[in-house]
Amino acid sequence: MAYTVEELLKKINDEIDNLDITGEPKELYLPAEYCLKNGGKRVRPILTLIACDMFGGNVEDALSPAVGLEVFHNFTLMHDDIIDRSPIRRGKPTVYKKWNINTAILSGDVMFALAYHYMLRTPGKNLKRVLDVFNETVIQVCEGQQYDINFETLNNVLEVEYLNMIRLKTAVLPANCLKIGSIIAGAPENEVRNLYLFGELFGLAFQLKDDWLDVFGDEEIFGKKTGGDIIANKKTWLYIKAFEKANKQQLKELKDAFSNRIQHPEEKINTVKKIYMQLELNDLAINQMEKYHQRAFDYLDKIKIPEEFKSTLSDFINLLIERKS
Amino acid sequence: MAYTVEELLKKINDEIDNLDITGEPKELYLPAEYCLKNGGKRVRPILTLIACDMFGGNVEDALSPAVGLEVFHNFTLMHDDIIDRSPIRRGKPTVYKKWNINTAILSGDVMFALAYHYMLRTPGKNLKRVLDVFNETVIQVCEGQQYDINFETLNNVLEVEYLNMIRLKTAVLPANCLKIGSIIAGAPENEVRNLYLFGELFGLAFQLKDDWLDVFGDEEIFGKKTGGDIIANKKTWLYIKAFEKANKQQLKELKDAFSNRIQHPEEKINTVKKIYMQLELNDLAINQMEKYHQRAFDYLDKIKIPEEFKSTLSDFINLLIERKS
Repeated sequence: MAYTVEELLKKINDEIDNLDITGEPKELYLPAEYCLKNGGKRVRPILTLIACDMFGGNVEDALSPAVGLEVFHNFTLMHDDIIDRSPIRRGKPTVYKKWNINTAILSGDVMFALAYHYMLRTPGKNLKRVLDVFNETVIQVCEGQQYDINFETLNNVLEVEYLNMIRLKTAVLPANCLKIGSIIAGAPENEVRNLYLFGELFGLAFQLKDDWLDVFGDEEIFGKKTGGDIIANKKTWLYIKAFEKANKQQLKELKDAFSNRIQHPEEKINTVKKIYMQLELNDLAINQMEKYHQRAFDYLDKIKIPEEFKSTLSDFINLLIERKS
Repeated sequence: MAYTVEELLKKINDEIDNLDITGEPKELYLPAEYCLKNGGKRVRPILTLIACDMFGGNVEDALSPAVGLEVFHNFTLMHDDIIDRSPIRRGKPTVYKKWNINTAILSGDVMFALAYHYMLRTPGKNLKRVLDVFNETVIQVCEGQQYDINFETLNNVLEVEYLNMIRLKTAVLPANCLKIGSIIAGAPENEVRNLYLFGELFGLAFQLKDDWLDVFGDEEIFGKKTGGDIIANKKTWLYIKAFEKANKQQLKELKDAFSNRIQHPEEKINTVKKIYMQLELNDLAINQMEKYHQRAFDYLDKIKIPEEFKSTLSDFINLLIERKS
């Protein structure tokens, strides 16, 4: 292991800062630059570089694809924000809000192409493999987003369906970032697979944490009001588990709350939270997260490299899972 | 030359009919299938296969990329129809109209990824080169579409700017279809370039013909009413030339017409057509088309293969240029 997370993050941010996406027509490239350079934790490219580094690869070989994966992630945000009509991201107006829907569609499309542009700079011998993995990821993320849209108007989403949706929409991308980094490093096939499965499981844990924070987070640390998912009738793991475990009376209260018959948002949040607490979903969610977390690390344990080579990855993941905002 | 256009078209349609784009969730794949299998002349994949065939390549090697180029073309239509708010395409409701904007965005995105999926099946030795050409094409088409959007709200578009816009939006894709087909056949570099330049020039001629048909086409053969571009204040070559050549009086009439101060659509079309005729734009446009057409064929003449190997391409192009609808 040659690099710390801070060093890898600096490499990525330097690379992104130096990207030449200031072309003409500026109406196309300005929103792309605004979206890409508007902060973000750079989780996905960091994972790509860590995976490359831990298997003894040259992280410079993985730098362009790492940037490609971050550009792709930002493209999905740009289009998702139109689809979800989200006005704010990272404290700033989203592209469709600051410009308009047409701009966000077309600038998103060019970002999508730019993502492939950087993926195409993967060194030759791994190029085809990396592009196949990347392209499959893209398709899966689209499928996940579509399931998420479908679930908005369904009332009886099963836990297994929900988990498949977040696997596709959220977990597959970071898992394949790890996979791509390890492929570029020339890791053995079974280790590539172990690392992928590690990534998919912590991706699920990560999304559960997201759902949990939205209900049980400390508003001061969380930085925004809790209950957003409840107001939006979002099918989260907590929502699905609540309907699964509720008794007759609780079921009636939940249905009333989510049917929006209770008019006041605060009242809706309080009713739902109260039932979640009665059903001990707080603990249940934490247990579930810990199970995914543990299972993820079981796969990391299987990987036959010295423990000290894994510490950057495990420290980084633990930091992500234990986040409070 | 082993194949006729009809044979190549059959190969393409068979391949597209057999594409497995019937996956889950169906809300994602159904609109993609609807768009892709809704007819279309398959001009771009035919060009790809003709180019491969004329340089003695195996057209089977070019079949997947040819389909990828057609899928990409259909993706651009799906997103452009949202941007332009076009309700009808090939006589049927467009995807955003039949479903909704969100569906057209996300199904378009998955088609974009499917296009790369088929491009990735290009045989190994040409893969990187073909993907680089394809990806550059994608970026240029986005740029062209953005210029087209920009021109909607500009009154003083120069001819050179207009030509650059249609080059990017319309001509670069068929030109690169020819390029990709010839690369797969292993054509010499200078011939690949000649064929590309041939394609770009006939692409310009093709767009001019489009602009011309919209004003001077025979409505019975054209299959719809002429004057659509005039009503939409579209910056066409005719529009730009008219403003360039008009005298003071004509300029005032044009400005009045396009400012929509004349309320009745028929009156607007008649006024503009009258001035176009006074300025002899009918003949001027035909001359201009013939110049592009001639210059295009100059590049085809330069290509050092037996004349009979070029006839499928030249016949196909002449058919496209001489079309009346």
